Amino acid sequence: MIHLPERVKICECWARDGLQGEEQVIPTEKKIAIINRMVDIGFKRIEATSFAHPKLIRQFSDSLEVLKRIKRPPEVTFIAIIPNDKGLDRLLEACDQGYGVQEITAILSASEDHLLANLERTFAEAMPPLADIVKRSRQAGLRVIGCIGTAFGCPLAGEVPLEKIIELTDWYLDKGATSIMLGDTTGEANPRQVRKVFGGMKDRFPGVDFIAHFHDTRGMGLANTLAALQEGIVLHDSSLGGMGGQPATRRPKYHKGFAGNTCTEDMVLMMEEMGIDTGLDVDEVIAAGLMAEEFCGRSLLGHVTRSGPVRHRSSQPLSLQNLSLNGEIPPAILFAGKMKEKWSGQALVGFVIREALGKSGPVPDNLKISTEGVSPKEEFGGRDILVTRFKVLAVQKEQNEAILEVLSQKANGDVFLEGKTSLIFP
Amino acid sequence: MIHLPERVKICECWARDGLQGEEQVIPTEKKIAIINRMVDIGFKRIEATSFAHPKLIRQFSDSLEVLKRIKRPPEVTFIAIIPNDKGLDRLLEACDQGYGVQEITAILSASEDHLLANLERTFAEAMPPLADIVKRSRQAGLRVIGCIGTAFGCPLAGEVPLEKIIELTDWYLDKGATSIMLGDTTGEANPRQVRKVFGGMKDRFPGVDFIAHFHDTRGMGLANTLAALQEGIVLHDSSLGGMGGQPATRRPKYHKGFAGNTCTEDMVLMMEEMGIDTGLDVDEVIAAGLMAEEFCGRSLLGHVTRSGPVRHRSSQPLSLQNLSLNGEIPPAILFAGKMKEKWSGQALVGFVIREALGKSGPVPDNLKISTEGVSPKEEFGGRDILVTRFKVLAVQKEQNEAILEVLSQKANGDVFLEGKTSLIFP
Repeated sequence: MIHLPERVKICECWARDGLQGEEQVIPTEKKIAIINRMVDIGFKRIEATSFAHPKLIRQFSDSLEVLKRIKRPPEVTFIAIIPNDKGLDRLLEACDQGYGVQEITAILSASEDHLLANLERTFAEAMPPLADIVKRSRQAGLRVIGCIGTAFGCPLAGEVPLEKIIELTDWYLDKGATSIMLGDTTGEANPRQVRKVFGGMKDRFPGVDFIAHFHDTRGMGLANTLAALQEGIVLHDSSLGGMGGQPATRRPKYHKGFAGNTCTEDMVLMMEEMGIDTGLDVDEVIAAGLMAEEFCGRSLLGHVTRSGPVRHRSSQPLSLQNLSLNGEIPPAILFAGKMKEKWSGQALVGFVIREALGKSGPVPDNLKISTEGVSPKEEFGGRDILVTRFKVLAVQKEQNEAILEVLSQKANGDVFLEGKTSLIFP
Repeated sequence: MIHLPERVKICECWARDGLQGEEQVIPTEKKIAIINRMVDIGFKRIEATSFAHPKLIRQFSDSLEVLKRIKRPPEVTFIAIIPNDKGLDRLLEACDQGYGVQEITAILSASEDHLLANLERTFAEAMPPLADIVKRSRQAGLRVIGCIGTAFGCPLAGEVPLEKIIELTDWYLDKGATSIMLGDTTGEANPRQVRKVFGGMKDRFPGVDFIAHFHDTRGMGLANTLAALQEGIVLHDSSLGGMGGQPATRRPKYHKGFAGNTCTEDMVLMMEEMGIDTGLDVDEVIAAGLMAEEFCGRSLLGHVTRSGPVRHRSSQPLSLQNLSLNGEIPPAILFAGKMKEKWSGQALVGFVIREALGKSGPVPDNLKISTEGVSPKEEFGGRDILVTRFKVLAVQKEQNEAILEVLSQKANGDVFLEGKTSLIFP
């Protein structure tokens, strides 16, 4: 694993690739809310919209409105996909008026069959206007991602030769592209192939920035991401809730089933757990994923969104800063058989809460635990086992106080303690 | 990737780990049907049942009945989990009567908190009787998997030190265990850690067979499997539909959300796509996954079950043997702009079908395509694009004939051809 990068840049694609396959049109306000949330969380690359013709993909009829109204801190690169010259005209006008993007994605497929299905063009038809899009964008001062879709295989034609990817990369670079995206458009890639392709491309094109863009169609999104990381790739694409897929047009489907991007929440968690710096906080990314679920009106495909982050014992003492509103403190177990003394009454409540909190990290000695809202039903002793969990109901910084909901169950599932507790920090 | 094994052995865990968290009790007949299907497909290691007390986990009250009635070809190793000595008594009686298993799993957790939650025992309480289970099983001629659960982290306590896994492995081997399973019981592992742990364990215990047992709780099941493969691990566990998780008892849940095993269908596909021989056919494994979905009455978590296998162009000419009943031939695209001649009428139908089939591999020249059941609505020319797909309705070996349902759509989604075609092979 000598190649693993220390830090990566994840491009959040929800607002474009994530939404392009969504049949319901998400209101502009909600798109803006998610993009602004991404900005706040710390994403430095955000795919904001598509300039596909609104008649073809209704979802993007508000692309200018979205660009006009999102937050735009200078450190964030916004990206738009430009499928044709009319789209570029509209974007450049927006750029002139100060609400454009810094980077565009120019699209091509490694498989001509997919190119026909996606853009209704052959290579011979698609490439001259695309060269013009790259050239004009560069002249306007924009960076250009040269996207090569179906780079790892085509759902319509099968294998794609590496030579074709090399040929298209040469072509893109010659026209002025500033980075190259290898897209696994419908999840055909496998990790051995990913290492071979990215390894080969990095050897062939040293110094070129490659972007790994995987779809999780066959569940290999994270495994392929790992393989790309092992080849030193630092630019990765993902989408909240694993949304994404073939654009929602009337065109016949070239895939069935899941076809979404690799899920942002899961990707961030994997990388952070591996010690690879994404610059992002897992809890905040999960909260954004839940926001996307709310806006879409259904559960999406994120795993971490359901399971929560991996549990680690903190070396930092519990503090008001660690506790986030509506956050949960995962279950902790207490076994009476290991206790020297028997506990009962309010002292028992305080003991259980302090011990359970202690499973997550040190608890300050002078933390005051108010147990008025909780009464134990019985003694705790013998071989009793308790599983205790908390939810943060309120964080009152002025009073140095947090209100927690506590639920403590015995091994047979019976509720032992239930109620609200207040933690007063020194 | 110098360590990647050429072939692996997947242990299919559906009938035990897959079902232990399932609230509905699956009828015995259906468990037997799935296990028999696994045998037919070619799984050489099958976890058949658990000897947990039926009062604790109702799902396994039929464990003896299942073992009595499944197919038992000599090349298949059946495995049962033995949580206590009473369970072993019952199993050994079955062994005496000729319907036992060849291998048992002895269970322990690397985290005492999890051990308490799972078995209501401390290390000091759990290990002496477990040593006895290992010893008695070995005396009865059974192989013993020493399972170390929560080896990569505990949902109740956080980090697990590598020293603890080494200590428990030493202990298991000393007692007579024939292999060691490192279980990621609730999906806490990440790929960097998996490489470090398995790498470290293989260095420390050369010659010992290690089993990788990951759960997909946080979507990293396949990424972690890849990491284990990269450390040369050849024994992998999985479950159809990604089922599995904490046993369905009244005990408080120590996780929430997805907690199933890594999905068999997805794992087999990934390995086969990587050129790692599983001895299994992806289509057949998908069919078994669909059977599990039918028996459970809901969609499960397999991706490949939805998407189908990765498309490859075959080098073998189309033959009756390639076509499986109810199988689908994935979509193929035709573009009139690339045709020299215009086609219409029945000749057009024959042309479209032959060309579309040809996207999957060579079509024999003397294949007879009967087009009576299909009529084209119009001419095909200009810039027309057709997406054509097939479903195999019948395979009649005596007549050398296959009946296919054909659906051909234009780029705007309109149906162009629809009906039944008959292929008569030479």
